[in-house]
Amino acid sequence: MVSEIANRINGKIEGNSNLEISGVCDIKEGIEGRITFLGNSKYLPFLNSTKSSAVIINKSQKIDSLEKTFIRVDNPHLGFAQTLKIFQNPIETYSDIHSSAIIDKSVIIGKNVSIGPNVIIGKDSVISNNCTIAGGVFIDKNCKLGENCTINPNVTIYINSQIGNNVNIDSGTVIGADGFGWVTDKGKHHKIPHIGNVKIEDNVWIGANCTIDRGTFKSTTIGNSCKLDNQIHIAHNVILGINCLIAGQTGIAGSTIIEDNVTIAGQCGIGDNLIIGKNSIIAAKSAILQSLPSDSFVSGNPARNHKKRIKQEFIIQQLPEMLLRIRKLENNFEVTKE
Amino acid sequence: MVSEIANRINGKIEGNSNLEISGVCDIKEGIEGRITFLGNSKYLPFLNSTKSSAVIINKSQKIDSLEKTFIRVDNPHLGFAQTLKIFQNPIETYSDIHSSAIIDKSVIIGKNVSIGPNVIIGKDSVISNNCTIAGGVFIDKNCKLGENCTINPNVTIYINSQIGNNVNIDSGTVIGADGFGWVTDKGKHHKIPHIGNVKIEDNVWIGANCTIDRGTFKSTTIGNSCKLDNQIHIAHNVILGINCLIAGQTGIAGSTIIEDNVTIAGQCGIGDNLIIGKNSIIAAKSAILQSLPSDSFVSGNPARNHKKRIKQEFIIQQLPEMLLRIRKLENNFEVTKE
Amino acid sequence: MVSEIANRINGKIEGNSNLEISGVCDIKEGIEGRITFLGNSKYLPFLNSTKSSAVIINKSQKIDSLEKTFIRVDNPHLGFAQTLKIFQNPIETYSDIHSSAIIDKSVIIGKNVSIGPNVIIGKDSVISNNCTIAGGVFIDKNCKLGENCTINPNVTIYINSQIGNNVNIDSGTVIGADGFGWVTDKGKHHKIPHIGNVKIEDNVWIGANCTIDRGTFKSTTIGNSCKLDNQIHIAHNVILGINCLIAGQTGIAGSTIIEDNVTIAGQCGIGDNLIIGKNSIIAAKSAILQSLPSDSFVSGNPARNHKKRIKQEFIIQQLPEMLLRIRKLENNFEVTKE
Repeated sequence: MVSEIANRINGKIEGNSNLEISGVCDIKEGIEGRITFLGNSKYLPFLNSTKSSAVIINKSQKIDSLEKTFIRVDNPHLGFAQTLKIFQNPIETYSDIHSSAIIDKSVIIGKNVSIGPNVIIGKDSVISNNCTIAGGVFIDKNCKLGENCTINPNVTIYINSQIGNNVNIDSGTVIGADGFGWVTDKGKHHKIPHIGNVKIEDNVWIGANCTIDRGTFKSTTIGNSCKLDNQIHIAHNVILGINCLIAGQTGIAGSTIIEDNVTIAGQCGIGDNLIIGKNSIIAAKSAILQSLPSDSFVSGNPARNHKKRIKQEFIIQQLPEMLLRIRKLENNFEVTKE
Repeated sequence: MVSEIANRINGKIEGNSNLEISGVCDIKEGIEGRITFLGNSKYLPFLNSTKSSAVIINKSQKIDSLEKTFIRVDNPHLGFAQTLKIFQNPIETYSDIHSSAIIDKSVIIGKNVSIGPNVIIGKDSVISNNCTIAGGVFIDKNCKLGENCTINPNVTIYINSQIGNNVNIDSGTVIGADGFGWVTDKGKHHKIPHIGNVKIEDNVWIGANCTIDRGTFKSTTIGNSCKLDNQIHIAHNVILGINCLIAGQTGIAGSTIIEDNVTIAGQCGIGDNLIIGKNSIIAAKSAILQSLPSDSFVSGNPARNHKKRIKQEFIIQQLPEMLLRIRKLENNFEVTKE
Repeated sequence: MVSEIANRINGKIEGNSNLEISGVCDIKEGIEGRITFLGNSKYLPFLNSTKSSAVIINKSQKIDSLEKTFIRVDNPHLGFAQTLKIFQNPIETYSDIHSSAIIDKSVIIGKNVSIGPNVIIGKDSVISNNCTIAGGVFIDKNCKLGENCTINPNVTIYINSQIGNNVNIDSGTVIGADGFGWVTDKGKHHKIPHIGNVKIEDNVWIGANCTIDRGTFKSTTIGNSCKLDNQIHIAHNVILGINCLIAGQTGIAGSTIIEDNVTIAGQCGIGDNLIIGKNSIIAAKSAILQSLPSDSFVSGNPARNHKKRIKQEFIIQQLPEMLLRIRKLENNFEVTKE
């Protein structure tokens, strides 16, 4: 019932509070009996026309009629996310520890832990309470997982990795492989041994097929509440501050420090040994070759202040015309001179 | 014998039709007793000099002598691809279902299915006739594979994924992980639960180490006959039309629609919530930040019409000289004025 | 003791040679009882202030006092790498062959080989002496590994792959999947069968989640002593010469030849059918669309000579001002003319 949803998302109902809701839908199309949300004024034209029976709207949103049921909240995006949670199937887990899992006798396993088929866990590792480790995961020796972690199928976690509480790692991700460090001496590449590890703090989300390399002799660190999309590459010794958001296919080179609350869009490359100041925003496909002060907003390859770049890009499109204007001036000048 | 090849590729022989052919080769080097093809006029100079004993050529290709054997076809590229198939070893499969596979009792398995060692298949999934599932694959609950699918080693397929007929998925690819969706409220990132799935239509080819995220509450969809190279990232809610070709390391952000017959070269990034019109071509390493009409041909970061961009890039290389010309004009003007 | 380190790294001690050393540290911070190195004049100011008890320095480095112990070597970077090796824990391996490994009877296994849990090895493959194959690795039929190889967890190696001696492959990497080759005929994409393989020569290092596709009918080849970072994509028929260094997330398209000693930074894209001359350097995020002569140094998209590009980029930033100067000239000219 829509009233239960309103309760769960801390909203105020306008309209029929006894309405039954069978699921969620888009505002553009809309499906009768379902609930949607208005999260962006771009979609305002659909507020009346949508076939959806209920809409989550902002506290102060004007409405024309009560033909539908509305739930008013502070943040409709958040309200809709919370609504999705209601309709999410509870994750069924393989109960207990699957008989095919190969777990060293020295491993310490907490309460309410689920370990799937063919999981391998090496000596002296610790798996804390309420963790779910899905099929085919490999966890090497001396790793520690905090509470409530979800490690999805076919993840690999190398030796000595330290993972906090409430961490999610999606399939195919590799935590703690050696960093790419070479000393080239007389034309020969000598490997720099890596004796550091990876440290992932609490509430971190890591997508699928990422790679996070261990530190040379310290910890590559992913700060509290960082969220990483798929196919992200974090090189050795990198330190991410808290609460960073990093979109897909971005790479961060060795020993760079990303301060708190930095947002990095997709396919960015950030050079080695840089410091990216807190609250900075890096637009998609940027190449960052220099450190950035706090609150920077940059784009491009090489990255520059985003507003200035927009202006430059605008003029680049006029270059053929600019060249003609220069030629005309030159011709006119010649004529004038004579 | 070359005549068997000609039959299989629907070609017409000129020269010795009894020639024995032991394999394929390059036209540039050529190997006696083998067959090659002329697919590009660039290689025309090798048509006489190649050591290859037979050459697949275009119907209308002029030839100088019959010292070699020729097979004339409509499309020599296609003819050569069909010839390669003749020399391909038949794929040997582990017969039946390997004893180490862990398959829930509720799983429905069709005829002539091969399931390799250590495969895991969850509750209520369906594996249709003639599928090959190689070692170490993880298929979660309630997935469906159509007929004739090949799932290569160490692939992960999340819950509720729907896969059509004749689909190939290469190793390390992850289908159906959660999309990267967050609502940031008062500085905190709240996860948007993902209750949608991935839907892959018939005849789709997906390379190695790709990631295709499930939809938020609808289906991320890969249309009929799409072909995806390696390390491609398809975000939540994306819809690919039919017959798209996407090269390696390209990423497509959330909720974008790619219409039919779009070709995307390697390492492109396509922003979220865009529509890329049918038959468009996107050059390598482009950043697409705006929707494109049908039949677009764009390149660069940010992407622009390819022909215009070529002109702009040409002038960018003249910028130092342009600046000098402006200075000269300014100097001349000063002189003139006085 | 510091004297043992000096012996191992072939260095000359100045100061207390009886000092006990408990580990390594940074020169900037420094930790008492540990050893660091001075590898870059940028860190010279820390040479006196570091809390480290010993420092590896260049043969000819001036020092002010002997309060610390110094080890003089030809190459402090190399000396430090060798020191790290001393402090590296010996890699413990699962002894012998784990009982859960599924190995075809025809497989030939050398001496002192370690094979982890759930490894799968297909018919007629050869694993030579001193190899370590970690848990969850899949090796298909007819593959050959030379001596001293380390294959990390969850790697996939397709049929017929040939791997030399002293090769390391990190987790999640996929060797030998089919190349992305299609013939489009009458609007339909026809697969080009791939009957070639991957050949990896000696002393190659391959990072995590890379993909190296097999050749169409020849060998995709990674030359002796090449070092590849994570998430690198090498397409079918590519040939890498010896001693190349390739940083993360770079992709090389089909049939391109990279000659010896080429260095490619992160996130580069190199087009198909090109030749990159030996000793070339390609800056991060470059798009290479044309062959390059030996000793090239290029950057950008599209890539151009790096020095010229730097100059062009510098002027791009002055474009708004240049446009104003042209306008001013035009106005002045109008005034003059009248």
